[in-house]
Amino acid sequence: MNFEPPKRIQTLLSDIRRFVERELYPLELTFFTDGFAAVEDALAQKRQDVKARGWWLPQIATELGGMGLSLVEHALIAAELGRSPLAHYAFNCQSPDSGNMVLLLERATSSQKERFLKPLLEGEVRSCFAVTEPERAGSNPTWQGTTAVRNGDDYVLNGHKWFITGADGAAFAIVMATTNPDGALHERSSMFIVPTDTPGFILEENVFTMGRQGEGWASNGELRFRDCRIPKANLLGGEGEGYAIWQERLGPSRIHQCMRWIGVCERSYDLMCDFALKREVGPGEPLADKQFVQGWIAESRGEIDAARLLVLDTAWQTEKSNAIETRDRIGLIKFHVAQTLGRVIDRAVQIHGALGLTDWTPLAYFYRTERGARLYDGTDEVHKLNAARRLLRRYRESASGGA
Amino acid sequence: MNFEPPKRIQTLLSDIRRFVERELYPLELTFFTDGFAAVEDALAQKRQDVKARGWWLPQIATELGGMGLSLVEHALIAAELGRSPLAHYAFNCQSPDSGNMVLLLERATSSQKERFLKPLLEGEVRSCFAVTEPERAGSNPTWQGTTAVRNGDDYVLNGHKWFITGADGAAFAIVMATTNPDGALHERSSMFIVPTDTPGFILEENVFTMGRQGEGWASNGELRFRDCRIPKANLLGGEGEGYAIWQERLGPSRIHQCMRWIGVCERSYDLMCDFALKREVGPGEPLADKQFVQGWIAESRGEIDAARLLVLDTAWQTEKSNAIETRDRIGLIKFHVAQTLGRVIDRAVQIHGALGLTDWTPLAYFYRTERGARLYDGTDEVHKLNAARRLLRRYRESASGGA
Amino acid sequence: MNFEPPKRIQTLLSDIRRFVERELYPLELTFFTDGFAAVEDALAQKRQDVKARGWWLPQIATELGGMGLSLVEHALIAAELGRSPLAHYAFNCQSPDSGNMVLLLERATSSQKERFLKPLLEGEVRSCFAVTEPERAGSNPTWQGTTAVRNGDDYVLNGHKWFITGADGAAFAIVMATTNPDGALHERSSMFIVPTDTPGFILEENVFTMGRQGEGWASNGELRFRDCRIPKANLLGGEGEGYAIWQERLGPSRIHQCMRWIGVCERSYDLMCDFALKREVGPGEPLADKQFVQGWIAESRGEIDAARLLVLDTAWQTEKSNAIETRDRIGLIKFHVAQTLGRVIDRAVQIHGALGLTDWTPLAYFYRTERGARLYDGTDEVHKLNAARRLLRRYRESASGGA
Amino acid sequence: MNFEPPKRIQTLLSDIRRFVERELYPLELTFFTDGFAAVEDALAQKRQDVKARGWWLPQIATELGGMGLSLVEHALIAAELGRSPLAHYAFNCQSPDSGNMVLLLERATSSQKERFLKPLLEGEVRSCFAVTEPERAGSNPTWQGTTAVRNGDDYVLNGHKWFITGADGAAFAIVMATTNPDGALHERSSMFIVPTDTPGFILEENVFTMGRQGEGWASNGELRFRDCRIPKANLLGGEGEGYAIWQERLGPSRIHQCMRWIGVCERSYDLMCDFALKREVGPGEPLADKQFVQGWIAESRGEIDAARLLVLDTAWQTEKSNAIETRDRIGLIKFHVAQTLGRVIDRAVQIHGALGLTDWTPLAYFYRTERGARLYDGTDEVHKLNAARRLLRRYRESASGGA
Repeated sequence: MNFEPPKRIQTLLSDIRRFVERELYPLELTFFTDGFAAVEDALAQKRQDVKARGWWLPQIATELGGMGLSLVEHALIAAELGRSPLAHYAFNCQSPDSGNMVLLLERATSSQKERFLKPLLEGEVRSCFAVTEPERAGSNPTWQGTTAVRNGDDYVLNGHKWFITGADGAAFAIVMATTNPDGALHERSSMFIVPTDTPGFILEENVFTMGRQGEGWASNGELRFRDCRIPKANLLGGEGEGYAIWQERLGPSRIHQCMRWIGVCERSYDLMCDFALKREVGPGEPLADKQFVQGWIAESRGEIDAARLLVLDTAWQTEKSNAIETRDRIGLIKFHVAQTLGRVIDRAVQIHGALGLTDWTPLAYFYRTERGARLYDGTDEVHKLNAARRLLRRYRESASGGA
Repeated sequence: MNFEPPKRIQTLLSDIRRFVERELYPLELTFFTDGFAAVEDALAQKRQDVKARGWWLPQIATELGGMGLSLVEHALIAAELGRSPLAHYAFNCQSPDSGNMVLLLERATSSQKERFLKPLLEGEVRSCFAVTEPERAGSNPTWQGTTAVRNGDDYVLNGHKWFITGADGAAFAIVMATTNPDGALHERSSMFIVPTDTPGFILEENVFTMGRQGEGWASNGELRFRDCRIPKANLLGGEGEGYAIWQERLGPSRIHQCMRWIGVCERSYDLMCDFALKREVGPGEPLADKQFVQGWIAESRGEIDAARLLVLDTAWQTEKSNAIETRDRIGLIKFHVAQTLGRVIDRAVQIHGALGLTDWTPLAYFYRTERGARLYDGTDEVHKLNAARRLLRRYRESASGGA
Repeated sequence: MNFEPPKRIQTLLSDIRRFVERELYPLELTFFTDGFAAVEDALAQKRQDVKARGWWLPQIATELGGMGLSLVEHALIAAELGRSPLAHYAFNCQSPDSGNMVLLLERATSSQKERFLKPLLEGEVRSCFAVTEPERAGSNPTWQGTTAVRNGDDYVLNGHKWFITGADGAAFAIVMATTNPDGALHERSSMFIVPTDTPGFILEENVFTMGRQGEGWASNGELRFRDCRIPKANLLGGEGEGYAIWQERLGPSRIHQCMRWIGVCERSYDLMCDFALKREVGPGEPLADKQFVQGWIAESRGEIDAARLLVLDTAWQTEKSNAIETRDRIGLIKFHVAQTLGRVIDRAVQIHGALGLTDWTPLAYFYRTERGARLYDGTDEVHKLNAARRLLRRYRESASGGA
Repeated sequence: MNFEPPKRIQTLLSDIRRFVERELYPLELTFFTDGFAAVEDALAQKRQDVKARGWWLPQIATELGGMGLSLVEHALIAAELGRSPLAHYAFNCQSPDSGNMVLLLERATSSQKERFLKPLLEGEVRSCFAVTEPERAGSNPTWQGTTAVRNGDDYVLNGHKWFITGADGAAFAIVMATTNPDGALHERSSMFIVPTDTPGFILEENVFTMGRQGEGWASNGELRFRDCRIPKANLLGGEGEGYAIWQERLGPSRIHQCMRWIGVCERSYDLMCDFALKREVGPGEPLADKQFVQGWIAESRGEIDAARLLVLDTAWQTEKSNAIETRDRIGLIKFHVAQTLGRVIDRAVQIHGALGLTDWTPLAYFYRTERGARLYDGTDEVHKLNAARRLLRRYRESASGGA
């Protein structure tokens, strides 16, 4: 066994941390208060810096302009980037574009790649991923109200989606829609690439979320498809493969997500330690001397370290096999890390007192936006149930085998 | 023993609930998205309706224009009002004005009452309460950086305050400042009434809190006092009595706060039950049939009922004696109810999924603003320590007595 | 509202507490280490003392030799008795006899009463209650493997029961058995009174529980019925009424159980406070000065007070109506108090360190025997699900009503 | 990074698991009900089997008759052994002997080794480790009431110890006693090897713990030293080195302890999965289909995996450096794993219902004996505080360094 990060990225990790601290932390307050649009230009410059340093697209192969990292290596970098809400964007590995790139890489035709993937990799455009619907529980991707009906050489889409991150300003959406409502449960839907300037593609509004409407990448759009007609060439993968594609996308993307959360935990932990030392509750009496605070710090350190190892081990196992083989474990990290994240942020807020509620530290941003971690891409509960059913299967088999 | 709400207010409670549901719920979405200013006019009208129904100032004696309720009765009404974030304001019993009214009633001279209390009771002006300082831990009100120095017939204030709810638009502030830095620990500070148009009273900005700057009553201001000169007639109570007055204010005000939180819990509970019945995770498969959801509903119901009784019992005991006698119990309810509140809101958000993160229900507002419940007016931890020390005193005495 | 215990029992409560402390605490260590048999004679003497003081059978009407208390009054006394594991027995209101008395009072014929109830009330015999079966989940009383087949004027019982408290030494058992396996779900079973000297009634062994086999009242027996023949006169209530009778028995009995647990909490709380003051972690440095310990003490006090009020309110509501009307609430207190109990005992053990693991305090006994509180008479989970389904019904009705 | 167990022990691990399952599980019930003495002979035979297979002393170097494993390898084996409460004993790596072997190996003179270590390694005798005192908090090893006074060529010991595991039947004790009460805090005590047949060494009784007195290895003795005279040759290490030696002993021994707990978790997890599949709550309705149960299974799997990785990483880091370097991390695993252990056992008990309280599964034994995990070798709280102080030190340094 060997728990040390690969030698070749150790320096990289500290270089990236320094970059994030020096170049991106200073933009955060403006982002929290004035929104994404207010920092978009500055971020465009930072993206150039990132490219210049050779850090662009850490999740993508070298021949496509990325860093060519292994899953474990990328995971380690994701934890560094997770420290700032702006870093994934600056490195062009932000959700949902990062997941869309994977989809397009694996499923797109060469002309689709040329038209949609290439500018995405370049960072010239953004994209969004439209599955969730307000009328249907997000936890059931086999049950989509949006339909795509074949009409000549086109498909005509009708339906309603929401909570579509980054729809505002995206060049195209990858959309899940029912193509065969009477088909087998997992073959009813298909994926489509829909340019956002297609007539009938309507961004109704950015949905107010936790008190902010947001804009651009940092927004959650509500979409309507009204007789939105796209050529069949925009079908991604085969008809009826929507669910399967959705599943493929999620595995590695959840690993990165979890490592991003570890980064959020680490930043929150740093903030709680720094503030505990600095803040006095009376003259010469720092918070750091209080047992309650010490308890939170020690618990957080233990939980973060354990969660980090769990994710890295999952990345390592997935590297050795694939995301279908390790999907139980990927299910486990999804809720385990999301819950760790919630506890660590909460303790950091509590230690900061009123300051923790303001936007003068990133904690309030983490608190309000990362609440979603226990919900998106499947609620914690859905992951628990799915994981448990598969975990139990092994016991069932061994039990019947023994009879 | 008798656990039934007093007969005379049973109808009142259901009338008020109906009013809140019909008149105030419809204003909430605008409040969440567009802010307080966007509903201020509508609320002014609702205040007239409330007055017309005889429900104005539920916490105040009849002869002063209030409802003349007992502490227990007011607590029961506070739970109804707590269901909407706008209701306390509509009834003119919102924090911090409500607490300031008590202070002025008990400590103000008759000319102070005429000038400051009267318009407050009428709802013609708002006020704020300025204790917390960014440089000093809020949990230590004996340690104030703001100073008030006697100069002729005036006091001159200098200092820095923040997290001052409703400072924006307030007519006056009640300010705690050090008058005798070398005095006994609890006699160093005094309270002052400072009209907000006094030169040297500076509202620097409304502090961004959980992503919103807010305005008017729904804001947290950062204040500077720069040689802010007020006549000694604006001293509230005697010099050196700041801490004592602060203590007095807190007792009953915490009871109301706790009952307001019970109201937030009840609203959240209603929302979770309604949504669990309505939302299907598959055709004909409502969330309400899921064990996880059922578990949260049952746990929430048990915890809310227990917390409600704990607060009512505390109100009842305080009515029979006073808030000094029952301060241990008031300390206990502060953190017990705040933690119940946190759990109930969190479960309601989780049941709502993505919808729980949007501002289309009040849950996201509760989630982001009520996080403060475990922090303001003393953190949970400070209350635990204070309560424990006093609780242990009884055992210490009985132990030595028994020797 | 009035939260004060009824005047007429206030002195009674403190008298009983003193009696329990002086007369029963001293017997506990022997009970913990040497078992029930070792204190049985001493307890027989205490029972005489209890009778002499007029405290016998607090749960029973005066005309039957009891104290004639209301449900609320009895609940208050149950909390005092709960402080010692021996007190309910000394007052002849221990489980399962107490529940059996209620059953016999309400359902027995006069000759059954004469033969079985009378000596039970006198304290001349003990009884047991045989429902749980090792092969079937305890949470499903409609699904009993034990059968009773009518044969002439007799019933012949066959089956297997376990976890039958106090079977060892009992004079008779009240047994649930299937009489009509094809009947409606809730009418399949009947209750029988089975004298333990009936041929075919076999106490196989006292089941080792948490490391002890126990004996007498403090044991859990495993029973076999092998062609155990009893006259039809021993049928309790009508045929097919087994489930209904079981339900009736549980309501009030759960209220008392919960108040007994409050007593266990109070004793544990006293022990933690006393020990925290006494135990030094260094010279002049008592545990009581540590924040962790203070936190546990304050949290425990809040939780116990809240739980106590919840149970008392439930008793009060049940007194005003009946246990069917309040069964939701009774379900809520069952798991709410059981969980509070678990937390409080756990904290008390933690504060005591190694001492908390020994039998030198009652905490280890509480820890190992009260773990059952979350399991017996329906697991916490079963109660949550049942309560939630009924709680949701109200919302379903109001929703359809409102349409 | 490489998360795979070293190749050379993969077969070993499964062989040992099979051995533990086949040879030791069958002895457990007798151990739980009739005690250690009832299985001692059978275990002596198993020890021969273990020796024959070359598995004796997994923690000890080959040249001393052990397996010569690395820390990580031993940790992996400790997790297999932890599945049965009898396995560490069968492999002669049980606490406290295992820790005493380390002490003697590192600190004993050659004649001490010949006399005390050799028979211990052979498994001919047992030993005990006497630090804890009833009058002093266990968390403070610098504050010992037991004294050792130099008298000619001897030391004379007086004092009181308790919770001394395996004192009953031990050949010798390693005892901590104050030799220089006025010395520097960490130099007041020394360690002595005291044969248990020395006059003045008195085993007063085995302390009843969680309802059982125990005997032999499975007991906790209370010791008195009354003018207990031992030659100065029995001093272990130098005078005043008691605390330092105690510290050394704890590091690696805590890592093994934690991995043993992982084994307890794994066994409990297996039991909960098997039982959930087997137990029906109604016809054809296994517990395994219930969401609550699925939730516990998934949570447990995630927590156990995370905790296991945390311990292995700590073992690996310690192997690379030493237990002083990694003491923060060792402190973190101590409480992190102990808390995971408590949760997993608790869920397994809950799933088993009444069966989980009986001694028919090992869960009740785990529940009552492993409660100590959060207490012995320093309470969770002590570890949190120590770890936090050291963790904060790095932030303090970086803060001052940055100024």
